[in-house]
Amino acid sequence: METLAQSVAVLLCIAHVLCSYGVIGVNGYIEYNTGSGIVDGKLNVHLVPHSHDDVGWLKTVDQYYVGSNNSIQGACVENVLDSVVMSLRRDPNRKFIFAEMAFFNRWWEEQSPEIQEEVRKLVDAGQLEFVNGGWCMHDEATTHYIDMIDQTTLGHQLIKSQFNKTPRAGWQIDPFGHSAVQAYLLGVELGFDSIHFARIDYQDRAKRKEDKSLEVIWQASQTFGSSSQIFANAFPVHYSPPNGFHFEVDDDFNPVQDNPLLFDFNVDTRVNDFISAAMIQANVTRTNHIMWTMGDDFQYQYAETWFKQMDKLIHYVNRDGRVNALYSTPSIYTDAKRAASKSWPLKTDDYFPYADSANAYWTGYFTSRPALKRYIRFLSGYYLATRQLEFLIGRRSAGPNTYSLAIGASEAEVTANSALSCLIDSKLNGQCVKPTVTFSQCKLLNISFCSPTENDIPQGKSLVVVAYNPLGWERTDIVRVPVNDHNLVVKDSMGKIIESQYVELDNVTSNLRNFYVKAYIGISPTKAPKYWLFFQASVPPLGWNTFFISKASLRGNSSTIYVSMMDTPKEKTIEVGPGNLKLSFSSASGQLKRMFNSKSGIDIPVQQSYLWYASSQGDADPQSSGAYIFRPNGSPPQVVSRSVPLKVIRGPLVHEVHQQFNSWVHQIIRVYKDKDHAEVEFTIGPIPIEDSIGKEVITRLTANMATDKVFFTDSNARDFLKRVRDYRPGWPLKVTQPVAGNYYPINLGIFIEDKKSEFSVLVDRATGGASINDGEIELMLHRRILNDDSKGVGEALDESVCVDTTCEGLTIRGNYYMSINKLGTGSRWRRTTGQEIYSPLLLAFLHENAEKWKSSHLTKATAMAANYSLPLNVALITLQELDDGSVLLRLGHIYEAGEDTEYSSLAKVELKKLFAEKMIKAIKETSLSANQDKSGMKRTTWQVEGENGSNSDPIRGGPVNMSSLIVELGPMEIRTFVLRF
Amino acid sequence: METLAQSVAVLLCIAHVLCSYGVIGVNGYIEYNTGSGIVDGKLNVHLVPHSHDDVGWLKTVDQYYVGSNNSIQGACVENVLDSVVMSLRRDPNRKFIFAEMAFFNRWWEEQSPEIQEEVRKLVDAGQLEFVNGGWCMHDEATTHYIDMIDQTTLGHQLIKSQFNKTPRAGWQIDPFGHSAVQAYLLGVELGFDSIHFARIDYQDRAKRKEDKSLEVIWQASQTFGSSSQIFANAFPVHYSPPNGFHFEVDDDFNPVQDNPLLFDFNVDTRVNDFISAAMIQANVTRTNHIMWTMGDDFQYQYAETWFKQMDKLIHYVNRDGRVNALYSTPSIYTDAKRAASKSWPLKTDDYFPYADSANAYWTGYFTSRPALKRYIRFLSGYYLATRQLEFLIGRRSAGPNTYSLAIGASEAEVTANSALSCLIDSKLNGQCVKPTVTFSQCKLLNISFCSPTENDIPQGKSLVVVAYNPLGWERTDIVRVPVNDHNLVVKDSMGKIIESQYVELDNVTSNLRNFYVKAYIGISPTKAPKYWLFFQASVPPLGWNTFFISKASLRGNSSTIYVSMMDTPKEKTIEVGPGNLKLSFSSASGQLKRMFNSKSGIDIPVQQSYLWYASSQGDADPQSSGAYIFRPNGSPPQVVSRSVPLKVIRGPLVHEVHQQFNSWVHQIIRVYKDKDHAEVEFTIGPIPIEDSIGKEVITRLTANMATDKVFFTDSNARDFLKRVRDYRPGWPLKVTQPVAGNYYPINLGIFIEDKKSEFSVLVDRATGGASINDGEIELMLHRRILNDDSKGVGEALDESVCVDTTCEGLTIRGNYYMSINKLGTGSRWRRTTGQEIYSPLLLAFLHENAEKWKSSHLTKATAMAANYSLPLNVALITLQELDDGSVLLRLGHIYEAGEDTEYSSLAKVELKKLFAEKMIKAIKETSLSANQDKSGMKRTTWQVEGENGSNSDPIRGGPVNMSSLIVELGPMEIRTFVLRF
Repeated sequence: METLAQSVAVLLCIAHVLCSYGVIGVNGYIEYNTGSGIVDGKLNVHLVPHSHDDVGWLKTVDQYYVGSNNSIQGACVENVLDSVVMSLRRDPNRKFIFAEMAFFNRWWEEQSPEIQEEVRKLVDAGQLEFVNGGWCMHDEATTHYIDMIDQTTLGHQLIKSQFNKTPRAGWQIDPFGHSAVQAYLLGVELGFDSIHFARIDYQDRAKRKEDKSLEVIWQASQTFGSSSQIFANAFPVHYSPPNGFHFEVDDDFNPVQDNPLLFDFNVDTRVNDFISAAMIQANVTRTNHIMWTMGDDFQYQYAETWFKQMDKLIHYVNRDGRVNALYSTPSIYTDAKRAASKSWPLKTDDYFPYADSANAYWTGYFTSRPALKRYIRFLSGYYLATRQLEFLIGRRSAGPNTYSLAIGASEAEVTANSALSCLIDSKLNGQCVKPTVTFSQCKLLNISFCSPTENDIPQGKSLVVVAYNPLGWERTDIVRVPVNDHNLVVKDSMGKIIESQYVELDNVTSNLRNFYVKAYIGISPTKAPKYWLFFQASVPPLGWNTFFISKASLRGNSSTIYVSMMDTPKEKTIEVGPGNLKLSFSSASGQLKRMFNSKSGIDIPVQQSYLWYASSQGDADPQSSGAYIFRPNGSPPQVVSRSVPLKVIRGPLVHEVHQQFNSWVHQIIRVYKDKDHAEVEFTIGPIPIEDSIGKEVITRLTANMATDKVFFTDSNARDFLKRVRDYRPGWPLKVTQPVAGNYYPINLGIFIEDKKSEFSVLVDRATGGASINDGEIELMLHRRILNDDSKGVGEALDESVCVDTTCEGLTIRGNYYMSINKLGTGSRWRRTTGQEIYSPLLLAFLHENAEKWKSSHLTKATAMAANYSLPLNVALITLQELDDGSVLLRLGHIYEAGEDTEYSSLAKVELKKLFAEKMIKAIKETSLSANQDKSGMKRTTWQVEGENGSNSDPIRGGPVNMSSLIVELGPMEIRTFVLRF
Repeated sequence: METLAQSVAVLLCIAHVLCSYGVIGVNGYIEYNTGSGIVDGKLNVHLVPHSHDDVGWLKTVDQYYVGSNNSIQGACVENVLDSVVMSLRRDPNRKFIFAEMAFFNRWWEEQSPEIQEEVRKLVDAGQLEFVNGGWCMHDEATTHYIDMIDQTTLGHQLIKSQFNKTPRAGWQIDPFGHSAVQAYLLGVELGFDSIHFARIDYQDRAKRKEDKSLEVIWQASQTFGSSSQIFANAFPVHYSPPNGFHFEVDDDFNPVQDNPLLFDFNVDTRVNDFISAAMIQANVTRTNHIMWTMGDDFQYQYAETWFKQMDKLIHYVNRDGRVNALYSTPSIYTDAKRAASKSWPLKTDDYFPYADSANAYWTGYFTSRPALKRYIRFLSGYYLATRQLEFLIGRRSAGPNTYSLAIGASEAEVTANSALSCLIDSKLNGQCVKPTVTFSQCKLLNISFCSPTENDIPQGKSLVVVAYNPLGWERTDIVRVPVNDHNLVVKDSMGKIIESQYVELDNVTSNLRNFYVKAYIGISPTKAPKYWLFFQASVPPLGWNTFFISKASLRGNSSTIYVSMMDTPKEKTIEVGPGNLKLSFSSASGQLKRMFNSKSGIDIPVQQSYLWYASSQGDADPQSSGAYIFRPNGSPPQVVSRSVPLKVIRGPLVHEVHQQFNSWVHQIIRVYKDKDHAEVEFTIGPIPIEDSIGKEVITRLTANMATDKVFFTDSNARDFLKRVRDYRPGWPLKVTQPVAGNYYPINLGIFIEDKKSEFSVLVDRATGGASINDGEIELMLHRRILNDDSKGVGEALDESVCVDTTCEGLTIRGNYYMSINKLGTGSRWRRTTGQEIYSPLLLAFLHENAEKWKSSHLTKATAMAANYSLPLNVALITLQELDDGSVLLRLGHIYEAGEDTEYSSLAKVELKKLFAEKMIKAIKETSLSANQDKSGMKRTTWQVEGENGSNSDPIRGGPVNMSSLIVELGPMEIRTFVLRF
């Protein structure tokens, strides 16, 4: 498009011409001096160029990489990396940091050898520095520590193998609050000496700005104390630059214009702007060093726009001389901070919950998208097991399925099936190239969809069930599969019939099955099976057992088949539970009244109910509840039902209580024969929205306990942190949201205690939870909201599921687990059960003649030495064969110091027994991400305000003796080894 | 901003991990083959990467360069050039064309020697090709051919000096229609063999697509005929790529994704898209070559986004093999077209007016912003004169004012003053370093503001008026200056009193002066002067004369002072005119009735009136009139006044008729003693808009002549083209806009003729004009519109002028000139007067003792040989000293073949006499832009459909003999020389 101004252009031509050819008033080439480095005695403004690139958000990761769907968000990470590299090459003083290896890896693989060589030089020269270095910048509230370790390891391995570098800085700039586990485990244990982030509570931030405590020494582990300190830098505003210093292509900014002959010359103005902004920050920061985060979301798409401006600013600001500007990185900044020899405020606990204003508590996302959260947690455990299986059979470098990208979850399934097949084949003995049998697994078991168990068992064959146990100790679980035949017997690997129990399939499950099987796999399922068949399965550690289900040939066997009986309540109180744990229900209201453990003698009145908060749609403050934000509208939560029909089903293995609270809330409580807890299977949804009210559904457990505002929640499923209602350890909290402001993320569990007892709840996925009144525990289980919360996602959290043209709100099915324990003993249940929930038995099915099967397969085995078991306070966190054939082993102590009288102690693992059939040739202890030798890691020490230096040392395991090969682990210790067999 | 998807990211990590480290499904590095070049026998798709960078439009040229004010338009040309160079260096097959040297020059001067060296390599390798190569892409409707030449020369000189290259292709992609002068003068005469553009009439385009005549041989000069052919390529849609192939950073496009392992793999789709788009274009194009213009306005801000996609498309399309894609340029494309040996349709005339839809005639911008258009035309002539003066004194390489960028116009004024001062100083004789006297010039003379003439002349001094004549022949003009003293005498350089005449200053002018002097220079002017003082000034060619105005010491002198008399009309008809030309007015209506020339005997009834079209605000078609578009609302134009008071002022030098048509339309018609034309000075504005109606004000001249729809308008003030109302030579016009669709651009003039007479009107600036009825001429003089026309400028054409807080609509004062001539003789008046209007006397003033002045200054002189004059059919177009001390001389014949019986013939210029005081050491004839030797220029010949090859050769001057140094010029010929003295 041109203009009238074409004529003006001619005029301008004339104007220029009059000023002669050649020298047309331009400034000529200016070489900007960007190499001052740090200058002592001046305020040093560290410009840290960065681009924050979500590995999937409004667009998919691929769309973000290639820059498609730019109408949704103008973002192309390929451009970022391409152009940053070009810009870095233009000036050796320029620097850039990059965090998300998912993007970097894809880019890296697509580069020419020449570019790769250039990038290696840039990395070696410190111009390009990896921060975080994980596959993505994980969230810290809803993530499991094993996933955090795994994804960080993946990135760190890439950095190590391609660049021989180890990242030094944590760069968690965007997560909505920060966890203790992030600081000490995904920080110190990775060898990081600093962590940097933007989002902390607005009240906290205000206070920290006032007393210059945005930068602290964060000592996040109670167990490790001062031995796990990290320098933590909370930014004064956000992770973008100060106003006016945002230089993305097409941004509206005021570029430095340094030709004094032109009207728009503005060097003095821009230098003054720079210094003003620097002084504001200097006034809230200790030492002569401040950091400017020179970037934002998906910025540097044309990196030169940023560097060109920064070059000029550094040049002219330093020529001005009042302050010193330099290209920097978090590492350089942290070194400067330490060199300043100041003492720093101490921070313990964590940075949850996060609020950015009075009514904007980011505690909704602890629960949002619960189906996805469950799927992720399922995959996490499944992946751990699959890697074990891969290790056990030896990774195949040319296997047909495991070395190409497709859908990770299905690849994992194929891998597990294939590995399991090889593993149990008694003839192969590890020489497996191609699986000899084809197993099925049943991912939709929870909604009773499992073809091999539902289908008629062919004549002469059995339903073979192989159960793999990824835990390091033997376990006994109840297996539950859907069947149609009511005349089946279950035999163990020795051919002995074992106890089983039938329960008729409930309507809620069969309805779910009808809709969701079609929704997920696109085909209409057959008629719902008639029964659940329960049987008890014992499986050795790191091993498997086989069960054979077949038609009872003679009626004589039927004594072992127990079809559950429906109870008709006659008493006022109905007691449920085949084992130690008993639950009492009111037959009048149908409500849970009491939990009692006959073994421990603990007896606590407990009520259980479902309620929902009405989501705020904004009021004087337009903030509404949404995908991120939890903001109830201020009314008390509405009780779903005060009286509920009760259906009790009893059998030898399990008692079930079925309760339909209303048309969209259903639950089954299961109390098992040999378990000390009750399993609550809830089914919630579709949440109705016809009344135009968003609803955030909770379950509330009310125990008669004096808890004095105190409750405990886990940090990334690892440490438990003490929480106090309406209180923060760091500052005098002004309570603006009495509910949302007391929510915390739950990944493992939540518990309360009084002087005698503990009441604990464990979860099956990331969940928000709180204790809003003494004695109460609540979990938010599902949310459906009609407004966007204006935090960027741009849509309401209103998940629906469609089959053909029929769509309905998402229904969530899940479990939580309740237990009562004597004070001081709850942790045993929580820790052990937590492991079992995370790592369930992996079941594989097929039809085969039982005798034929037994003749060619190992039906029961362990990879460990016979009768060996890991100590009950140690978990096998990682067992994985690496690219080069070496093996990554992570062992983790799962108790904190002082948590349990017995288990919070030094534990020992005998590697020779753990790897009974293999010979360890070499063992090397490494950092958590296995990117450096443990012995070479330097612990950074910091001066902390008011610290006396006399911290008692935590218990840690000693070096591993090559002959005994015993690994010691102190409480909470995770040790990472690379082994060669 | 992050998200819930942080959890998803962890999931993705898991998915990736399961597929192993290292090879994570990426494609690896792919070297794209972009070097196929042209492939015979296939459809070749020439991808021509370009960025269209307006040298000032919605933002200033500086804002566009540095990328400030991006909220108005995201555009930064520095980014374009930076990133294009980086991208071209990545692949030697990549190409880019660049047009606007105003931007390139600034960028070039700011580059390091290393980058400059790289760019030179790119230019040498043909990767970076300059197209057009002028300072800007000038408009073709409202521009004067001298400006077009000058601005193109400026760019071409830069290209030549820095790269030793001569552009081959015209690249006028954005101008709104295309002129004949562009094609043959700013095309063929520059050595271009092709011209490429996007905007032609939508009906024309439709027809051309149908008969594959978008590409033609354009023979735009009637005089030169087939010797001035150029290949002209009108794009089938616009200058952007086909839909879906627009790859700017942040654009929403579908990038080529060639990793077959990923979901978004789309190579086949994109290849098919490409081929489909190519076939559509192939179907409207002759030969196996089509051009895709791969760019748009201010694109390639991050060039790699474009090249990356094009690399892949070329690679995969060529692998597909159905068509061949290549990086190309207009030159490569044109060569391919010629090599195809097809014959091409012939196009004569031009591409005006331009409409892009039925009611969107781009004929409003012919007039829009008339004040700016006048200022530009003034500067154009002023610049020509100033360069002459600079040449005459020799350019100073270290002068204080001429070698630094400031405001061109003031620099020019300083330069002219300084040069004039040196030139006339009889002692200096060209050795001038510093001016000895300080002249004033009066830029606001037209509104009676000129301090040196208004001020009291100090005792013993005179008002010295130096008049410089930039024309090549002697001239006699009437000089008019505002004075307060009514007792002044004017003496010539010999001291002889010459005739002068006083006219009282009118109120309209003094009101204008009060407001606009403050508006322009920020200071309130003194009380308006009482009189205009007229005197006749004769000035030698390329020389000057001096006039001395002083107080008449004795009353005896007052006989020479003529104070004009106001006429009181007594007769029915009032006749006006002191010379041959007489104008008759009706004393009843005040209207002009007749023009009569007593010498030629021509006598034509002529009415003159002012009217306005009401601007359309859109109707069923929402198209409104606006800055670009002229769309009257369909009503007949409203007559401003049918009856007007008449004030006639008479004196010996001039008769004036003052007419106030209404409160905002005023005019003075001046008929001078020795001129055969009437000068109309109109003052229009502020156009009232209280009625919410936009108004487009015209003057309409109605002559009693049978013109049979025919009228003539100039092309860029050079050739005259025949126009036929409601008709186009190329296609059967469907008339949708009977007024707007018949408007043409006027830069020199417009005339009509019947069997006996011609009626001509010349203008002082670019203006729209038409002949809507036989015998009529109308000029659009001013426009004020309340709607935007949706063509990109985004605002209504509603110019206002402010003094302090008082703003009012813009008032326009200007002149047009009317003459009646015998059929066949009008061109003499038009050509000569045209030169005088373009190049008025340059006046410089100061106060000095007349005798003292005369003793030290040359009061009258010519740079030419005494009594030598250029032939009346030759104009001095350029006389300019270049950087290296050589001198650029352009001489132009100003008659077309057959235009005048006498003057349309070979003319001769004696250089020895033209440069009487200098010795020509060397002379080299060059192309029009002086970037190549004339002798080395190849004329490209094309096969034209139906051409018999027997065109009669036009008259052209022969080679210049070094001893005689006589330059011959055939009709319309412009010859360019570089001289050394």
